[in-house]
Parts: sequence; structure tokens; C-alpha cells
Amino acid sequence: MLNYTRYRRVPVLHYPERQWPDKEIEKAPIWCSVDLRDGNQALIEPMNVEEKMEMFDLLVKLGFKEIEIGFPAASQIEYDFLRKLVKENRIPDDVKVQVLTQCRENLIDRTFEAIQGIKNVVLHIYNSTSTLQRDVVFHMDRPEIIQIAVDGTRMVKERMKNFDGNLQLEYSPESFTGTEMDFALEICTAVQKEWDHANDNPIIFNLPATVEMNTPNVYADQIEWMSTHFEDRDHIILSVHPHNDRGTGVAATELALLAGADRVEGTLFGNGERTGNVDILTVAYNMFSQGINPELNLENVNEIIDVYERCCKMSVGMRHPYAGKLVFTAFSGSHQDAINKGEMAMKERKQEWWEVPYLPIDPADVGREYEPVVRINSQSGKGGVAFVMNTVYGYKLPKEMQREFADVIQKISEKEGGEVSPSRIMEAFEKHYLKLKEPFEFTSLRVEDDQDDDDTRVALDFKYKGEDIHSEAGGNGPIDAAKIAVRQCVPSVDVTILNYDEHALSEGSHAKAACYIQMRDNRSGNVTFGVGVSSNITRASIRAMFSALNRLSEMENY
Amino acid sequence: MLNYTRYRRVPVLHYPERQWPDKEIEKAPIWCSVDLRDGNQALIEPMNVEEKMEMFDLLVKLGFKEIEIGFPAASQIEYDFLRKLVKENRIPDDVKVQVLTQCRENLIDRTFEAIQGIKNVVLHIYNSTSTLQRDVVFHMDRPEIIQIAVDGTRMVKERMKNFDGNLQLEYSPESFTGTEMDFALEICTAVQKEWDHANDNPIIFNLPATVEMNTPNVYADQIEWMSTHFEDRDHIILSVHPHNDRGTGVAATELALLAGADRVEGTLFGNGERTGNVDILTVAYNMFSQGINPELNLENVNEIIDVYERCCKMSVGMRHPYAGKLVFTAFSGSHQDAINKGEMAMKERKQEWWEVPYLPIDPADVGREYEPVVRINSQSGKGGVAFVMNTVYGYKLPKEMQREFADVIQKISEKEGGEVSPSRIMEAFEKHYLKLKEPFEFTSLRVEDDQDDDDTRVALDFKYKGEDIHSEAGGNGPIDAAKIAVRQCVPSVDVTILNYDEHALSEGSHAKAACYIQMRDNRSGNVTFGVGVSSNITRASIRAMFSALNRLSEMENY
Repeated sequence: MLNYTRYRRVPVLHYPERQWPDKEIEKAPIWCSVDLRDGNQALIEPMNVEEKMEMFDLLVKLGFKEIEIGFPAASQIEYDFLRKLVKENRIPDDVKVQVLTQCRENLIDRTFEAIQGIKNVVLHIYNSTSTLQRDVVFHMDRPEIIQIAVDGTRMVKERMKNFDGNLQLEYSPESFTGTEMDFALEICTAVQKEWDHANDNPIIFNLPATVEMNTPNVYADQIEWMSTHFEDRDHIILSVHPHNDRGTGVAATELALLAGADRVEGTLFGNGERTGNVDILTVAYNMFSQGINPELNLENVNEIIDVYERCCKMSVGMRHPYAGKLVFTAFSGSHQDAINKGEMAMKERKQEWWEVPYLPIDPADVGREYEPVVRINSQSGKGGVAFVMNTVYGYKLPKEMQREFADVIQKISEKEGGEVSPSRIMEAFEKHYLKLKEPFEFTSLRVEDDQDDDDTRVALDFKYKGEDIHSEAGGNGPIDAAKIAVRQCVPSVDVTILNYDEHALSEGSHAKAACYIQMRDNRSGNVTFGVGVSSNITRASIRAMFSALNRLSEMENY
Repeated sequence: MLNYTRYRRVPVLHYPERQWPDKEIEKAPIWCSVDLRDGNQALIEPMNVEEKMEMFDLLVKLGFKEIEIGFPAASQIEYDFLRKLVKENRIPDDVKVQVLTQCRENLIDRTFEAIQGIKNVVLHIYNSTSTLQRDVVFHMDRPEIIQIAVDGTRMVKERMKNFDGNLQLEYSPESFTGTEMDFALEICTAVQKEWDHANDNPIIFNLPATVEMNTPNVYADQIEWMSTHFEDRDHIILSVHPHNDRGTGVAATELALLAGADRVEGTLFGNGERTGNVDILTVAYNMFSQGINPELNLENVNEIIDVYERCCKMSVGMRHPYAGKLVFTAFSGSHQDAINKGEMAMKERKQEWWEVPYLPIDPADVGREYEPVVRINSQSGKGGVAFVMNTVYGYKLPKEMQREFADVIQKISEKEGGEVSPSRIMEAFEKHYLKLKEPFEFTSLRVEDDQDDDDTRVALDFKYKGEDIHSEAGGNGPIDAAKIAVRQCVPSVDVTILNYDEHALSEGSHAKAACYIQMRDNRSGNVTFGVGVSSNITRASIRAMFSALNRLSEMENY
């Protein structure tokens, strides 16, 4: 029995005045990547300097303007990495480097050593403010906790005088979601007063969901409450730093943006301690999918995955939004059918905006051009098989034929288990339609067209049950004449041609054509399609006729 | 450049009357697993019959009372599987089997064949209602779409008369999130009227986020709007079926529960088409973590992972909430330190409820007892190393020693890269403390205790730089006397013992004890710890003294 009585409800802020549920996201926030700090510290194998450099370059390329690179005062590796960035001139002028430190004097001194020579720095100080951490970790009351933050602020302010670059202060009341709102406000206000507009940059207050503790609307309430209760909101950049313990980090971020957050700290693919930080990519792609400029260069998701997986030795899940291998794939028949129709409708209407059922975005827009959108398993139907035959091999199966062939594929899938690859589908198409030779095998045809539509004469050579047959006949076109020619020699053939479709398989005058003939056996009532291919359209149609005859023969041995 | 202008904003319901943001989740919904249908259809390799059986048995064991097993009219495998369940009597009396079908007569007939002999059935009919699908897939107007649903309802109602079991109707306006609310309400109302309380079971209206199209608060607004606008809400079970295209499926579900949903359809670990369905486990564990009975038997998450990964051939991500390999792991030093202190505080206070920083739940409560909560990499600190030494090996390092030893481990981590395993930590502990033999090597000690605390005499044998030395001395206890005995023969030794700690390494009178001695070299000012282990507590302390002497000697060759 799950021991749920051991847990207590986290108290919820009572805030009926909230306005955020009536709002919509209108623009991208300031993005701050913490991949090199929060992300890195949670890796089984943290990045080495080369990997950090590759990750840093990727983040710059993606358009991040604020990048937290670590805790240089606590780790020699992070100190060295930062100095290497400075020495090799790797930090673009428009990128702020963010460094984290606790509010201890020796650490702040060392941090200032680490940032010498950097043009734009966000110096990020924090201390833990939650009721629980005050109680069990720090054994301090509220004024003592505030003093830590105010002292840290003062230390930064003092040392800033001897720093040449542009320095912005960020303060995080760590474990904010476990902190009483009035205390969070009190400590931020004390920090802001101590800072006292020490330079023109607005101060960043970063309100982390260090541990995600409640449904995401509660976090939004907390953010809006803080945003509307700050004394000097105009000189504050309100930042959020959501974690994902309840699997709702993306939602918490989005609702926090509705609630007034200006800035988001997160990581690529949500890497980070435990369940991770908020996945900035998903939040940004969500904006993109609604026509909002995400202000990040995310047009090549595969490159992002590559660098991430290599540097972090983590893998991106198969169903990870926008990035997983399966997220643009439809296995279900009805989904495949709808995607097929949606894409056709867009083409026919020459529609500029994207709107296809079951595909929120065009995979090609994020660099997934060769994505197999439609994959076939035993759950797939006619739409999917038709889609594969068309997009991969160029065969536009007539609507009535799609179900017939999908049944063939479903049987294979149920029998063999697992996915049916496009090549396996084509193999089945050849076996069941194109390469049938029993009992009828087409050999050659000569057509004499006497400029008279109603009277075409053919000389047909074919095999029936292995025996060579020559037959000549007339009809109102080559197919009709060939059918009569067959019947003359094989009297059991009593068929009607119900439908006929033909299309070129590729462009150009030498292109092959595919011909589909739907045929009914008048005695059994069975109906089937036959398919023929040739660069000669007449030959393609005769082959299709023989294909249909063989299929009918299989269905009932006549 | 990301081509965001190709996309349009999905219109948002204007609904300022909403009440859900003021609510909290109070109890578990009715859970319906769609693992065998929606989950299965999205697998590269769908489950075979044996795997389906194993999955079905797991779902029953977990306490699901409603299980959608598939679309038997469309798939022979699913038909056969259902018949096998019936034939083998595998369906408990209190479990409803749910089957999906489109509203077509032949499919509904076949579905009724499939469910013969089942006691409790949810017959789930659907058709797609979104503006987009009406337009590009079905080419139908609103009344035609309604007619499909009403006809399907009537067909089920007619055939139900000849069905012996208990049948509940579920209707889904598929692609609900892309449907105008008034039309969704209209079609559900038409279905309810046609059904006309055909039996005592309330009808299930399932409102799927077939494609997740907006922030989760919008879905909650839609659900609350529907819930408050139904004419006959009392006879309706309001079900949600969220997908995860925007990575907010769990949040959408939780907010929908606030908004009045009674029932949730989802899957284990969020398996399902594209980005998947809502992960029922995460929603349930979220409730559990807040002291709410999730009404599912989720006390062994490892078993669920095993069956899922085997049957679905999918893997659970490292950071998947509650289930991922890393989600109960802290690599950061300050986190490790806080966890350490939190667990100690709980023990000291004999606190019944769980409350530990950075650990929302006790891993043991979900069957992760042997979880290495604390793992060590170059980002870890003294808390983590101390935690490993204590929980894995039983050494309770004195607080002042934790930083000293953590520095040893950090150097190893930075040098070797990657995670430092507990055994590697222990190896370092032995090398740097327990097994030091240069220049001092302890041989034996004889203590003469004359019932007088102030006068203990020892006869000490040891080696110094390989040379055997015998020395006798007195002092106020064996350590003091031994120290003097050493100094008598090695005059360069001028040390003060600052601290002394000793504890048993295991229970029982034959247990070994570990002794920690903090020692200062009075000439250099260097301070270090030494550690000794023995079943004889005196010998343990002398070994600790020799360990400290050797460490001081290493620090400065005196």
C-alpha cells in the first residue's frame, strides 16, 4: 500500500485577485541558459573543458544572451574554464556571462578574480529561504537569513567599484516555492534597498521552483503576487528558474510568463538536478508553434541534440517534445489518413500557414526534413500505407485500392510483428501485384490501331499455366481487345474492368507509368486491383490486367 | 531563421468566470488506462498477445478499474486478445474493459461480437469534430458531423438490448481542443439525448486534447466551460484524454481536474502517439506526494518500469519524474548537505511525515530503497562524501573532517573525470587514512592501567622509517602516553591532539570501532585528521594517532 499518509499538502497561496489566467503569451522572455551550471552539476560525468567550450559555442549560436557558466569560486575547473573564455576572447560583446556564488566573503572575492576582464557579467548570489531549510539546515531565524543576503549584496557592491566591466546583480531566494511569500518579498526588498540602484542595470530577482511542490497555477499565483507587491517593480527583472519534480516545469514556466515573469533560466532538453530544470527548447518551440518569435535560433534541432548528447552523455527521449525521434511520426491509420489529406489540402489551396491534423508544426521547419512522418505497424491503416507508397516510391494508389493493399500489409505486420519498413511494403507490393506470373504470364503485345477508336486489334502472346499462347482479337481499345484475346483461349475468364487509373512514376518523356486496373470476376463476384508498370503506357495497362487476372485466380482457383 | 510567421495563434476561449484557479486537487479521479490502445498503437513494435497479457495483468495489479484494450473491430490481434481475456477468465469482476470503435455499422457489429461474455464494458465511440478535420478530412458541415455521432449512439443503443453484460457508453468528440466550444457542447448534447439514459450508467463524455494546442490553463477553461454548460451534468462522467505535444500533458490534466474532470485517460510513463499521452503515474505520484490517496498501487515503481520496458520496448528516461534513474539523486554538494541534515532532523525529532530538502518523497516509499540518493562527481561537496561514507560504509566522519576528505575526493574527480563511485571513495579513504605506513608504522601496544586515570603507562612498539623502535611512557590515558612514547624516540614530533571521536562500525560486542583524531603540528601549524579501526577501541585510537602523524608528515616532511 502506497504510504500517502506520510505526506502533507504544501500550503497554497490564497490569491483570488490573480489576472494571469486572462492573459496570453505575447513575446519571448529574456532567456538565460544554466546548462553549464545547473545542468552540468547534475551529470554523472560533468563536462570537461573541451565539452564546456563546445556547449558554450552552441549556446551562443542558438542566440542565448545570458549564459551561467558555473560557480568559479567553488570549482577550479569552472574557474579555469571562465579564464579560458576570457583569454581566448570567446565571449561575444552582446553576451552576458553569469556566475553563481554563495554570499560568503572569500567566495565573492574569488568570484571577482574569476570575472576580471569580462565586459558583461551577471553576478548571481543566493541563499536558501524556505521554512524547511531555515529549520533543518541553517538553524536561523528570518532576520539572520536576511542578513546573509544583505551582506552578500553589500560585498558585491563594494567590490564592484574596482571592476571594469558592466555588472548586473542577480539575487535568488533559493527554495522560493517553499518560502512564505511575505518573507520572500521582505528579503528581496532588503536586498534591493542595500543594492540601492548601485548601477543603472535593473536588479534581477530570480524566484526558483528549486523543488516543484504544487500544480503550476500555484507557482503562477506566487509569481504574480511577487510581481505586483514589489515596491520598486520598474527596476526589477523578474526571473523564474523552474524545476520539474512534478513533470510540469514547462507549464509552470508558461503560466509564470502569463503572471509577469520577464526572464527564464533553464536548460536544453531540461537537463538538471533530479527531474531537471525547465526545458527552454520546449517553451521556445511552443511559442514558435503559435507564431511567436522565440528569439532563439532553433531551426536545426538535430544539431542541438547532437551537441547535447555528446557533451552531456545524456540522451533525448523518443517522445521528447519537438526533438524526440517519434514525435513527428504517426502510426495510427486514421491519423496517417488525416495527415495525408491535410497536406494535400495545403498544397491544393496554396495555403501559406501550416495547418495539418496531428502535426502541430512542419518537421522541416526545425530541420527534420527527412523525418518519416508516417511509419507502419499493425495499427496502421490504408492512409499510412498509401502515404508511404506515394512519398517514398511515387505510386499514387487509387482510393479504392488503398484498403485492399493495406490489408496485405496489416497481415504481414501482424504475422511478423513490429514495424513494416517502406522497403518491406514495396517488396509486398511487388510480390502481390507487380511480379505475379501464375497462371497468366504476359509475353508481348502488338497493337494495330486503324485510326478508329472503336476498333483496335491486338496480337497477344502470353503463357497460361506454363503453355505459350498466341491470340488475336479486336475491341474498343487495347485493354478490351486483350481481354477478349485472353478469353478466346481461356474460356473460364469472365471478368469486367471496373476502373482504370494511370500516372507517370517520375518526370520526363522516358518516365515509367504505373497503371491500376480494378477487375471483377463475374462468376464469383470477387473484385481486385492489378498493377502494371512500363515506360510504354499500353504495356503498363496490359500488365495491370494480367496482374488482376492472377489475383482473381488466387482468390478462387478458376 | 526559424520560420515562425508560418504559424497562427490557436484562438483562446474567453472565460473570465472560471473558478478552477481557486481550487485544489482533493481526490483521485477515475483512472482509465489506454496503454493497450493509444499506447500500443504508437509503438515501433506493438505488443504481441503475450506482452498484452502481461501488460493487462500489471494494469489490474496496479488497481486500474477501467482498461481500454483496443479497437477489436479494426484489428484481428486486438479481437483475438479480447476473446482470449474472456476465454481465460482474466478480467476481474470489478474491472471494466473498454473498446474503441468508429461510428460505422459494420465496426459496431463486430465490436459487439468481440465483447460477448464480458461483464462490464465501456463501449467507446468517437468521431473527429475539429474545424480543421471537418474541413480537410471529412468535408462535412456541423449537422453531418453530429449525425455520425448520433447514428453511432443509436446503433449501440439498439445492439445493447441483445448484450448480457453491463454496458456504459463513452463518446469522444475527437480533436476536441481544435473544436469550437459551442459545437462540442452541441454534439455531446445530441449524443446524450439520443442515448436518453438508455441504462443507469452515466454517459462518459471524453474531451481529448488530441493535439495539445495551447497553455494548460486554456484546456482547463475549456473543461470547466463544458462542465458548467452541460444540460444534464449529473448524468455525465466528464473524462479527459490529454496528449503532450507541448510537454504540458501532466499540467493540463491537473488543471482539468481542478476544472471539474471526473476521469482521466492516460498511459504508464506517457506512452502514446507522438509525444505521448498524459503520464498517469506522474499525476498519481504528484497526488501521493501531497498526502492524497492516488487510488493506485504504485508502491513498486521498479516493477512497473520493468514490465513497461519489456512489453513496449521503450525506455524510461533518466529524469522521468518519480521513475528515472537520476531523479532521487543529488550531485550538488549543498543539496547533499541539506538532504543529510534533513534526514538527521527527521530522525532526531522522530517526525512521522516526510520533509527533506530536495527530496519531495522518500524513494523507499515507491520501492527505491537502495537508491543511491547521493552520488559524487566533481560538483559534489563534503555533505555528499560524508553521506556516502556513512550510508554505504558506516563511517560517521566528524563535521570538521568532512571538508578535508571531500577535498581528497574532489581532486580525484577532477583528475579522473566523471562520477566517483562509493568503492572508489572507500579506496581513497583507505589509501589516505587507514593504510598509511610511512614514516610511522604501528606494531603493538601494551597498556598498564593502575586504576588511576591520571597515570596510564604504555609499552609501544612501532617502526620509524623502517627501523623497529620500542618505547615506554606514561600519560593521562593511552593516547597521551603513546604520543609521549613516540616523541621520546622521534624528537621532531611536536603535536597537539585537538579532537577525538570514536564510534562502533556495526552492532554487537565484537563490532569494530572507528576512531578519528584531529592533530595539529605545533611547528608548522598544519592540522589534519587521522583514522584508525580495530575491534579494540584502544588500538583503534593508537592507529588513528599514527594515521594523523603520517598525514602531517606528508604535508611537511619533518
